[in-house]
Amino acid sequence: MKTSPLAPASFPALPPVVGVRLAAHACNIRYKDRPDVLLAEFAAGTQAAGVFTCSRVVAAPVEWCVQVLKKSTMRALVVNAGNANAFTGKEGMDSVKRIAKATSATLGCAQEQVCIASTGVIGEPLQDAKITSNLPAMKAGLRADAWSDAARAIMTTDTFMKVATKTARIGKTQVTINGIAKGSGMIAPDMATLLAFVFTDAAIPASVLRTLLREGNERSFNATTVDGDTSTNDSLIAFATGAAKHAAVKSAKDAHLKAFRAAFDAVLMDLALQVVRDGEGAQKLVAIDVRGAKSDKAARTIAFTIANSPLVKTAIAGEDANWGRIVAAAGRSGEYLRQEKIKVLIGGTLVARDGARVKSYDEAPVAAHMKGQEIDIRVDLGVGSGKATVYTCDLTHGYIDINGSYRS
Amino acid sequence: MKTSPLAPASFPALPPVVGVRLAAHACNIRYKDRPDVLLAEFAAGTQAAGVFTCSRVVAAPVEWCVQVLKKSTMRALVVNAGNANAFTGKEGMDSVKRIAKATSATLGCAQEQVCIASTGVIGEPLQDAKITSNLPAMKAGLRADAWSDAARAIMTTDTFMKVATKTARIGKTQVTINGIAKGSGMIAPDMATLLAFVFTDAAIPASVLRTLLREGNERSFNATTVDGDTSTNDSLIAFATGAAKHAAVKSAKDAHLKAFRAAFDAVLMDLALQVVRDGEGAQKLVAIDVRGAKSDKAARTIAFTIANSPLVKTAIAGEDANWGRIVAAAGRSGEYLRQEKIKVLIGGTLVARDGARVKSYDEAPVAAHMKGQEIDIRVDLGVGSGKATVYTCDLTHGYIDINGSYRS
Repeated sequence: MKTSPLAPASFPALPPVVGVRLAAHACNIRYKDRPDVLLAEFAAGTQAAGVFTCSRVVAAPVEWCVQVLKKSTMRALVVNAGNANAFTGKEGMDSVKRIAKATSATLGCAQEQVCIASTGVIGEPLQDAKITSNLPAMKAGLRADAWSDAARAIMTTDTFMKVATKTARIGKTQVTINGIAKGSGMIAPDMATLLAFVFTDAAIPASVLRTLLREGNERSFNATTVDGDTSTNDSLIAFATGAAKHAAVKSAKDAHLKAFRAAFDAVLMDLALQVVRDGEGAQKLVAIDVRGAKSDKAARTIAFTIANSPLVKTAIAGEDANWGRIVAAAGRSGEYLRQEKIKVLIGGTLVARDGARVKSYDEAPVAAHMKGQEIDIRVDLGVGSGKATVYTCDLTHGYIDINGSYRS
Repeated sequence: MKTSPLAPASFPALPPVVGVRLAAHACNIRYKDRPDVLLAEFAAGTQAAGVFTCSRVVAAPVEWCVQVLKKSTMRALVVNAGNANAFTGKEGMDSVKRIAKATSATLGCAQEQVCIASTGVIGEPLQDAKITSNLPAMKAGLRADAWSDAARAIMTTDTFMKVATKTARIGKTQVTINGIAKGSGMIAPDMATLLAFVFTDAAIPASVLRTLLREGNERSFNATTVDGDTSTNDSLIAFATGAAKHAAVKSAKDAHLKAFRAAFDAVLMDLALQVVRDGEGAQKLVAIDVRGAKSDKAARTIAFTIANSPLVKTAIAGEDANWGRIVAAAGRSGEYLRQEKIKVLIGGTLVARDGARVKSYDEAPVAAHMKGQEIDIRVDLGVGSGKATVYTCDLTHGYIDINGSYRS
């Protein structure tokens, strides 16, 4: 698979996070000759929180994580690529339990201290023995600097690894926030076949971490879509080892948490945009900025209707400034608007207003913008002050190639 | 453009409908050297009713038709392909009025007796003089047997003309129902860049015709989707000349209207399926039958979520029996379900039940079914008695080819 043209030019080297060690291993779940399972080990007392898919068809590992994150600190994370362990019934949950049991035995922790995530094909039994039999080798290979290996092990149809890192101060103490993610198809809000994991040495109680995660997720992953297809396995989990010594954190609103929150949000946003940049077949990153709607919620619905419109996405793939499809998508969103008030800007150039194309429209600057890798679409509805920005990619032959033959 | 592999093997010759004459003309709206404008003339007293797009961005001819259909019998229909006259502001409505005025002068009727419909590119001014200057020639060419010419003149990216015909008896009197349609992209419920026109010599009052049309549309056009993109121009209009002599019709529930209703519905369904068969790039016709939902509405939402899922549609294009994507789409529909109760059948073969793939699953018959041109997917949710069937097509490279370069 060729690397996405939208891939970052370079990747940061992720620094260690005190209290986190990682190992990746080729377990042949589905892929040959590449690491496809990640084991992360956390220091005792590691706080954790997660947000998960809103689908009613939920993979077994997601059901497991939702339960264990309610009651315990975490000591381990096991992630496999190639098989989603979704729609696998009782057998699927038995697989999860065997992985938790083997990991607890290997690392010497409780079973409910093991988070588990899976990504890949839906509906096929997970051969968990391929994972559990390799846990001792993985334990022996745990390292503090294996971030790239970890990010690569969780990839499916991703064409590049997704990593992000930030530092921030809580009081005078510097803390680190590292993130890894995998994405590609089935990316849509609430959430995506998205696995994303964030690791920090800050001491953040699980309840506070949950708030940070929920709010940060709304602005980042939940503001992106590749194909509108939410998956059964979406998991975003944050782990805080507490190795850094700083004043206690009581609430997400604590003043001394401000810089940390900004850095935490930046890591989520960085990962989310990398996921869109690696949307299956993506050739262009598209920002859709809707303003002047009746409410933020209405703006969001309109922005997502445009972002998920196959006609808009194929026009962008064809570098065609077909703004008519943009207003058509807005019109069918179900949200209130008045066509004679709509303004459309592409790449900052006013294209349409007052219900029609602008007089003496010069398509040249817009056509030039469409040839770029980053496309900016703004729609101002002029009927309120609601706004939302969402990110998507174009719909290309590459998407069909990848998804018309995924299982074969 | 190659004819869709799903095109009907042959087309019926449409018989005359007493009171209807047709002419098609090459007006060079957008296409060169092919008829792209249709003029239909109706006998005095022709009753008419329409259903139109639910988009809030509505083309000028749709606004016109909604108004005139409220108050008058109809004498003419003018349809152009190549330009939608949508999002064209005041100028667009001025074009519509000039067409109505010129048609009324040419045929000797009132302006509000002229229905107008347009299909094609959004946002570009319609050069209405190209239509109005040709009206006298079109009047001279009006014929009772020009049904194929009429059906071809309204095509845009359609690869075959869409015609349907039925006869029925009202009492002892035989009446004829002819229909023509155009579709292709932007096909989704409420409704589609769909133009469909139905013509009958029955004497049906406009109020009754409206009921027949609304109910028939729900079961036919509104149960189909190509790409989920509803257009600005969707128009389904029925004309009843009243030339046939039969007992008066008072209500849509009249017992002597039963056979007519069935035939009328059959014409709508025939046209709707032809539109799906000619979905842009379509290689397969897909029926999605959802049962056992909490309500018919829930079943419909689930069926459309599956039908519009790019992952499901690309899997079908790849002849991949990826039933996991089907349950994933059902799961994210927002409707109530319990995954452990879902049954999935493909081509009549039970693939999954009780939240997992069936034991000893033999993919061979399912794989064979996927290679056919007509794909049957059934999802039984087992939580109620709601049901719905919707029709769609696969998502192929052809769709990208057509829509990535439509305007250029």
